[in-house]
Amino acid sequence: MAPVAPRSGDAIFANVERVNAELFTLTYGAIVRQLLTDLEEVEEVNKQLDQMGYNIGIRLIDEFLAKSNVARCVDFKDTAEVIAKVGFKMFLGVTASVSNWDADGTCCSIVLEDNPLVDFVELPDTCQGLYYCNVLSGVIRGALEMVSMKTEVTWVRDMLRGDDAFELQVKLLKQVPEEYPYKDDE
Amino acid sequence: MAPVAPRSGDAIFANVERVNAELFTLTYGAIVRQLLTDLEEVEEVNKQLDQMGYNIGIRLIDEFLAKSNVARCVDFKDTAEVIAKVGFKMFLGVTASVSNWDADGTCCSIVLEDNPLVDFVELPDTCQGLYYCNVLSGVIRGALEMVSMKTEVTWVRDMLRGDDAFELQVKLLKQVPEEYPYKDDE
Repeated sequence: MAPVAPRSGDAIFANVERVNAELFTLTYGAIVRQLLTDLEEVEEVNKQLDQMGYNIGIRLIDEFLAKSNVARCVDFKDTAEVIAKVGFKMFLGVTASVSNWDADGTCCSIVLEDNPLVDFVELPDTCQGLYYCNVLSGVIRGALEMVSMKTEVTWVRDMLRGDDAFELQVKLLKQVPEEYPYKDDE
Repeated sequence: MAPVAPRSGDAIFANVERVNAELFTLTYGAIVRQLLTDLEEVEEVNKQLDQMGYNIGIRLIDEFLAKSNVARCVDFKDTAEVIAKVGFKMFLGVTASVSNWDADGTCCSIVLEDNPLVDFVELPDTCQGLYYCNVLSGVIRGALEMVSMKTEVTWVRDMLRGDDAFELQVKLLKQVPEEYPYKDDE
């Protein structure tokens, strides 16, 4: 029998412990400001935010697997959908969409139209190279690595840079099927 | 007529935008770790966390005043109760209590038994001087300063240091009544 997995994070999000989104937004802003002060180079800040995200992702995956109750993903396409529809909803309260698949199903875009990290944020001219939300790419990379998917996650569009949405390209580099067998339970 | 103010943050908390508490906890943990790496001295980390909290507090007060719908506080005693009962609930989803008032009503303790910042946290021996939650003292200090109350906020008890609760002493140093007239509306 095929497992029935929740494909929306709404119910889960309603039942997890939460904190005020504005507190989170301001706290994240305080981190970025702190890193800009301490590290000076925007490129270094991007790296640190990604690394912080990675460290968060490798732990957040446990909460995700414990609370989301999703069935094992059939393939990378399925995984991307679960991240977009369940993961983003469960943690940030927003939904993302998946698009731009390549022919062999190993590279796609996750598109966010609503992003609580950037409320009230405007980048000054001195920070134009900053990927303010780089923590998100790190979280996805870290979380997927814990389920044996090595990925590369990069920004394609960024509303703080004038684009019309946030778009992350997620590219599957390597998958170790033995440790986490993604197969249908039928 | 005396204003009727909500004295509990439950209803407000239920209606504000929120994010997953574990994401917040892990994000805050990532900041502290980052600061420990960058600054090395625990005392410097305490200062930075307090400063970050201050920067958050001076902005969070706007959200608080806009959403909490509390009436103007009659005096500092009233203010402390509102922070404990409405503020903590509205932002962190927990309730605090107020105790240990001094004779002239300018110094009290805010006691937290539940604190989402410290879930999964254990301090290594090298960090024993760290006030891990120092962002909270900064938030209170910053928020109160924006309503013309200059305060000193210090930790009295800290569960990460083996105490049985988190206790913040809040001492009113100076109040500028003209700019924000705390008087009864009767």
